[in-house]
Amino acid sequence: MPDPIVDIHTHVYTPAYLDMLRARKKVPYVHDPAAEGADSRLIILSSDDSPSIPQDQRGRPVDSSYSDINVKLDFMRRHGITTSVISLANPWLDFLDADEAQTWTERINNDLEETCARINKFAEENETGVKTLYAFGALPLSAPTAAVVANEVSRLKTLPHMRGIIMGTSGLGKGLDDFALDPIWASLEETQSLLFLHPHYGLPDEAFGGPEVTQRYGHVLPLALGFPLETTIAVTRMLLSGVFDRFPKLKILLAHSGGTLPFLAGRIESCIAHERHFVANGGKTQGPVRSVWEVLNTNIYLDAVVYGEAGLKAAIHAAGGHDRLLFGTDHPFFPPLDEKEDGQWLSVSTNFKAIEKTLSPNKDAVRAVLGGNAVRILNLK
Amino acid sequence: MPDPIVDIHTHVYTPAYLDMLRARKKVPYVHDPAAEGADSRLIILSSDDSPSIPQDQRGRPVDSSYSDINVKLDFMRRHGITTSVISLANPWLDFLDADEAQTWTERINNDLEETCARINKFAEENETGVKTLYAFGALPLSAPTAAVVANEVSRLKTLPHMRGIIMGTSGLGKGLDDFALDPIWASLEETQSLLFLHPHYGLPDEAFGGPEVTQRYGHVLPLALGFPLETTIAVTRMLLSGVFDRFPKLKILLAHSGGTLPFLAGRIESCIAHERHFVANGGKTQGPVRSVWEVLNTNIYLDAVVYGEAGLKAAIHAAGGHDRLLFGTDHPFFPPLDEKEDGQWLSVSTNFKAIEKTLSPNKDAVRAVLGGNAVRILNLK
Repeated sequence: MPDPIVDIHTHVYTPAYLDMLRARKKVPYVHDPAAEGADSRLIILSSDDSPSIPQDQRGRPVDSSYSDINVKLDFMRRHGITTSVISLANPWLDFLDADEAQTWTERINNDLEETCARINKFAEENETGVKTLYAFGALPLSAPTAAVVANEVSRLKTLPHMRGIIMGTSGLGKGLDDFALDPIWASLEETQSLLFLHPHYGLPDEAFGGPEVTQRYGHVLPLALGFPLETTIAVTRMLLSGVFDRFPKLKILLAHSGGTLPFLAGRIESCIAHERHFVANGGKTQGPVRSVWEVLNTNIYLDAVVYGEAGLKAAIHAAGGHDRLLFGTDHPFFPPLDEKEDGQWLSVSTNFKAIEKTLSPNKDAVRAVLGGNAVRILNLK
Repeated sequence: MPDPIVDIHTHVYTPAYLDMLRARKKVPYVHDPAAEGADSRLIILSSDDSPSIPQDQRGRPVDSSYSDINVKLDFMRRHGITTSVISLANPWLDFLDADEAQTWTERINNDLEETCARINKFAEENETGVKTLYAFGALPLSAPTAAVVANEVSRLKTLPHMRGIIMGTSGLGKGLDDFALDPIWASLEETQSLLFLHPHYGLPDEAFGGPEVTQRYGHVLPLALGFPLETTIAVTRMLLSGVFDRFPKLKILLAHSGGTLPFLAGRIESCIAHERHFVANGGKTQGPVRSVWEVLNTNIYLDAVVYGEAGLKAAIHAAGGHDRLLFGTDHPFFPPLDEKEDGQWLSVSTNFKAIEKTLSPNKDAVRAVLGGNAVRILNLK
């Protein structure tokens, strides 16, 4: 039995999900160019939907790697990944009309559950070395009430291959410091469901100098900076509003090693300590009770998708050790631009190498980040 | 002779500078409350100037610590700092009308030079243990032509206590990837002047969820996140536009340990490597030639103002070792809220501790970051 290598950050768009996007005309949507044989285009960032970009070139090509589970399994074989915990990619179901949110969410979560069940049944009945799947479900956040959302949290707990929930930073539309989310936090805490917090909305173009600047460099600014900065802002707002004080048993997995939270944790803590508004008795509002470091060491898990030793060192230190970091790939995003038939993806090998170089010669630590931690934290077989 | 402890991140607003701000009615400006004995208020962030905040409570109190050099010297004594490299605090001179930019800039830079000369003359004539000062000058960025700015770069090189230049991320108003800055980069490179790049503009309120969210937590979001994210965006735009390819001998000191650059360097490098726009012959634009890591190891210096071991570890690794990191305090910002007469400031001791804990037991490395690197890099006596 080889050591497990578990990919906890790997996305799918189910075929039904893509058809739903195909019927839409505004972000997020799928556009099929008229040209023969051209890949469909997936437009999920508002910066990709500028009128200055020809319609057929907006967004990114979406091929079978996004929706065909066999392509995922091939990718796993190529990289020696034994188990993947698949999740719907952004923007999940955030955009659904209120009246269809629950129905679509249940349909897509059930699809994910059935896919995992089918693949794992095959694995059980066949030789070793066959791949297994688990999933994070999505929530009907645009549903009419938070109770509908909380109910889906409970329902997901009853599906045998679900191991948590993936969610963006918008919450019910007002961010994650919205007190209206409390029933959902309560439900996550009560069911001890892991929440995989993932960016989608990025930063407004103005943060980069306006849309012309953003587009000048392709997707680099929104993806390299917008995504991690969004995650950092979202979790800091949670912290500042006292979510981790009110729900001290929340378990949150942060995408991209926390965005930039491990690096900025000290500065955040210092700014809170020096904030006049937060001074007891004199301040307008109360600051958070539990420190950033305590939250990082008890509530937060980090994926190891940070593409270098510098980031990984900060992540491991901030998390209080290597036992809260989990390997991931971000598949099918960041494919090689000149893919060789059997080679490893650069985006994946960069993370493999960073883990090995940062933690060696401690082989147990490398094994833990690559798979052991995921098996323990997510209760995988 | 004790080991030098050099503070390279320490700000002043000269009295003349504050009077200039007092005459203004829009950000940045100084407001004097009517109440007897009330401190003047300094409003430098647009988020501080919301109509929803009473005028007398906007911004932050500005006392003598901002402008009286004796308060700076007391602060240095209290923390064992032997030498400070003082710089005008944000927003420097970015807001000046074009026709007054050169005059004001020369006046303020000359003031700084004279202050350093006076203090160091006193130090020379007296016992050891007396403090010495150097300075970073500011530039007349709103002057009618880039040539005026480049001229001030050359003029500063002739002033004996100037050791570089402090600048914000706006450049000539269009960010640091503006090709119109090339004469200024050329001038910095030619004179081998160190550029201290410092944030001021933060992020638009929308990045935090709108002005109401920003204000809810005092200054925490703009200062803890807006500042470092601004620095990260600015230097990434420089990199993407090829500034470091065209001017490979630029020397840039990044505030707050690079914002979040050390943590995100790997992700930036990966996003560039996977960006279709940057593929040679097929792409619309050329990506940067030199890697983020190479730039971090040859062009960039980082202050050690990151308030924790997690960030400092990433900074040291990204910089290729501890010899490119320089101690700083950010004085007079982040004073203790309940200041004790002789105690060290929490904001300073947090950085002292982080340096000692991260680098111990290598005492040479601790000494290098605390002062030795600054003496070598800035050619201090």
